[in-house]
Amino acid sequence: MTPSVTTRDLRSGETRDLGLEESTPQDVAQYCAVAASSGYGERPLTWRADLLDAMATELEGRAEGIVACADRETALGLPRLEGELRRTVYQFRFFANVVRDGAFLGAVIDHAADSPMGPLPDLRRMAIPLGPVGVFGASNFPLAFSVPGGDTASALAAGCPVVIKAHPAHPETSELTFGCLIRAAQAMGAPDGTVALVHGFDAGVSLVTDSHISAVGFTGSFGAGQALFRLANNRQTPIPFYGELGSANPLVVTPDAAAMRAEEIGQGAAASLTLGVGQFCTQPGLLFVPMGADGDVLVAALVSALANVETGTMLTTGIAASYAMGVQDIASVPGAKQLVGAATGAGQANPALIEVDSAIFASPEGARLRQECFGPMSVVVRYANLDELHRTLAACESSLTFTVHIGDEHDEALSDLLKLGTTKAGRVLVNGYPTGVGVNWAQQHGGPWPSTTNSLHTSVGAAGIARWLRPVAFQNIPDAALPLALQEANPLHIPRRVDGSAQ
Amino acid sequence: MTPSVTTRDLRSGETRDLGLEESTPQDVAQYCAVAASSGYGERPLTWRADLLDAMATELEGRAEGIVACADRETALGLPRLEGELRRTVYQFRFFANVVRDGAFLGAVIDHAADSPMGPLPDLRRMAIPLGPVGVFGASNFPLAFSVPGGDTASALAAGCPVVIKAHPAHPETSELTFGCLIRAAQAMGAPDGTVALVHGFDAGVSLVTDSHISAVGFTGSFGAGQALFRLANNRQTPIPFYGELGSANPLVVTPDAAAMRAEEIGQGAAASLTLGVGQFCTQPGLLFVPMGADGDVLVAALVSALANVETGTMLTTGIAASYAMGVQDIASVPGAKQLVGAATGAGQANPALIEVDSAIFASPEGARLRQECFGPMSVVVRYANLDELHRTLAACESSLTFTVHIGDEHDEALSDLLKLGTTKAGRVLVNGYPTGVGVNWAQQHGGPWPSTTNSLHTSVGAAGIARWLRPVAFQNIPDAALPLALQEANPLHIPRRVDGSAQ
Repeated sequence: MTPSVTTRDLRSGETRDLGLEESTPQDVAQYCAVAASSGYGERPLTWRADLLDAMATELEGRAEGIVACADRETALGLPRLEGELRRTVYQFRFFANVVRDGAFLGAVIDHAADSPMGPLPDLRRMAIPLGPVGVFGASNFPLAFSVPGGDTASALAAGCPVVIKAHPAHPETSELTFGCLIRAAQAMGAPDGTVALVHGFDAGVSLVTDSHISAVGFTGSFGAGQALFRLANNRQTPIPFYGELGSANPLVVTPDAAAMRAEEIGQGAAASLTLGVGQFCTQPGLLFVPMGADGDVLVAALVSALANVETGTMLTTGIAASYAMGVQDIASVPGAKQLVGAATGAGQANPALIEVDSAIFASPEGARLRQECFGPMSVVVRYANLDELHRTLAACESSLTFTVHIGDEHDEALSDLLKLGTTKAGRVLVNGYPTGVGVNWAQQHGGPWPSTTNSLHTSVGAAGIARWLRPVAFQNIPDAALPLALQEANPLHIPRRVDGSAQ
Repeated sequence: MTPSVTTRDLRSGETRDLGLEESTPQDVAQYCAVAASSGYGERPLTWRADLLDAMATELEGRAEGIVACADRETALGLPRLEGELRRTVYQFRFFANVVRDGAFLGAVIDHAADSPMGPLPDLRRMAIPLGPVGVFGASNFPLAFSVPGGDTASALAAGCPVVIKAHPAHPETSELTFGCLIRAAQAMGAPDGTVALVHGFDAGVSLVTDSHISAVGFTGSFGAGQALFRLANNRQTPIPFYGELGSANPLVVTPDAAAMRAEEIGQGAAASLTLGVGQFCTQPGLLFVPMGADGDVLVAALVSALANVETGTMLTTGIAASYAMGVQDIASVPGAKQLVGAATGAGQANPALIEVDSAIFASPEGARLRQECFGPMSVVVRYANLDELHRTLAACESSLTFTVHIGDEHDEALSDLLKLGTTKAGRVLVNGYPTGVGVNWAQQHGGPWPSTTNSLHTSVGAAGIARWLRPVAFQNIPDAALPLALQEANPLHIPRRVDGSAQ
């Protein structure tokens, strides 16, 4: 018998059957086949943009119910979820504008010409949709990185139909938000198969291995992400797998910064590391703080701020159990000092702070300290001087983000730290906190392995659309038979490079 | 004892010791480590462009010796190799201009602003070099896809040092051309480790698995490419592997085209399929020709043109042996009719042409017909009508190219064939031949698996540089500490998107 899908009120523990069964392999195969033959990608760009806007409007219109449901299932709280819904709605509208802008097509025209290679024919290049995309909803963002999230919005923007695997921690929110997407699709006359939703672990495996699926977007843990990445690579026809796996996100406080803003940074770091019960992939899990009086003030401010943080309910009991074990494991590294950390009950988490010196952190025994522990905990690494700091940072794994707190713009430590941060992360920031990832043109959410499976791409921002596109060149094609984006008269009015120059 | 590197005169069979040993794992590790710490990628863009120009000039200055050596080692003939050298030289100059143009950096600036997500900080994004790149020289292009080839030129353009694995079929050409790159590098004061050359099969394995290598470019066979792709994916830190693996390259002749240009197409196809003894990854290995009188005329013209093609020397005796076996294998498919095909001696190849009907081609027994047979042979598939043609084409694997010959621009078959070709290939062309891949802005050399391991990229043309770059976003960084490409005043004068608009 196929298991049924149940929702759980995370605070009360009450469960309710949603009247749905988990998707069978046959269901998944059927959705993917319908997606592949839907013809969605051939609709005009303006229609595609309007569809994304319609989806935004549907989500906005049901905001209250969606947020209430997401709060029951995730306990993330109304203010956070209201903000996440606004972001999710904005994300669809933003991608509608990315589609209208047209630059994402990368249209290039080289007219026939002589060259040192002899005469070259007329050649025109543009990006086309890859085909049906599989999207995995994340536990920690029931909206912005789940059914109506950035992967879905960017894939639809690219012209790819989407088959989404709901995260089991919020199936009802998934159904509610999927309902919005479906209603918008139907109202716009979108073809069957434009979006589909599946439930269940096995459905996820079927999705990654389905022959009609041409790429996968995933946000989640390193373990699950790496397993699915291998699965995608080892298919008979390998497909791109974009896994956004989280990371330890070092935050470095320079001696100047500690001298000037110890209290402020201690409080700011406490707020960032405990935001959403620490359940952000950009949560700052490593804090590099100078030894000495300034650093001591900073750590004291941090400890005192953490004392005021309430016990939080984590997204699943499994995540809470992993967190408790992770804290215990890290605290047991010889030389590690637990500065903050109360016992946590089932499903709940209190903040934790563990302090070590640089030598322990960079040692073979310190490996556990250098990995992400998902939840409201950070490791404070105390360093003696900038040389030691650099040697210690070199031991860090790559991350989604790398943060530097400096005194002022003349801080002598800044230049080398930026250089190092650039090699270690996808986003480098100064005097801020890594949590909070805006949706815009410049965003980069994705760093070198192990923080993502593909560092050439981003899962947030306009460039996220490139994950679902491949280029095709058209040689010597009669003008009327060319895609509109490449016809000589530029009927879509999109930016193009013609004979080497931007037009 | 480490094996020594020997060159072989392909026509006379004479071998000569080059006075070199194959590279040991220690050699490879050493080159990669030096490359990683070279600081090459930090040099200014203008210097980098000048280095590429200097490499072009060095190659041009030694053209005669290089071409003569390449001809001894590959027997491809002086005219072809002179053309290939011109292309190779041009490719360096072209990438120098791609660097000067600056658009490849993808610079984007979003100033701090309010948004539906709340206030967003100043965020600036650009592409940075991935790090040392491993390049595998190809057997069939001793220059344009080998040591001084497109992978090397584009990786150096991206700011990545390059460690090249010489193809064993032309080690002396590899050394000669590498000498040009090194002399230019030294004259320009490039850091040690900017380019390195290794020899030997084991060196190739060491290269793909070296922890300092951040991406690999490969042009070669499906078997070798797939094995190295798996190796790259299964590293502790997986890296992008760009394998350009060749394909069957369907060429479709519509009924209208056959009615209007049967003789001309027969002769043109014969020339394209035998060019360079058929040793092109874009060689048209599948010819779809209508049944009936027009198609018969076309096939007769093809057969007669092939009768005038001289026996050719293939790149290695192994390749020649595989070709002979492949022809035999394909000819033995029940129902296949061998129209052209003489016995070939050791290392030599004669053209071959095998005819089948659509049903055999698309049948399970026809699998062998649908794969590339590297060498001067094509399979002619005769189809009864356009419906049958489409069903038959659906059975084809994806390819680098897809060619359609039409009558005129009103040919009723054109639209559907273009649509199908776009799903099946990276370059779609009308009334031309797929051999010949120009270096320019619009080029796309790379199609869906199994023709390449990564269809989102190209190994020829300006966009090839994107394979070696990853984006980084800089948040709230003091202007003077930003990379020049992102500083507010745009000191590099490069194209950028600022607050959503191209500048």
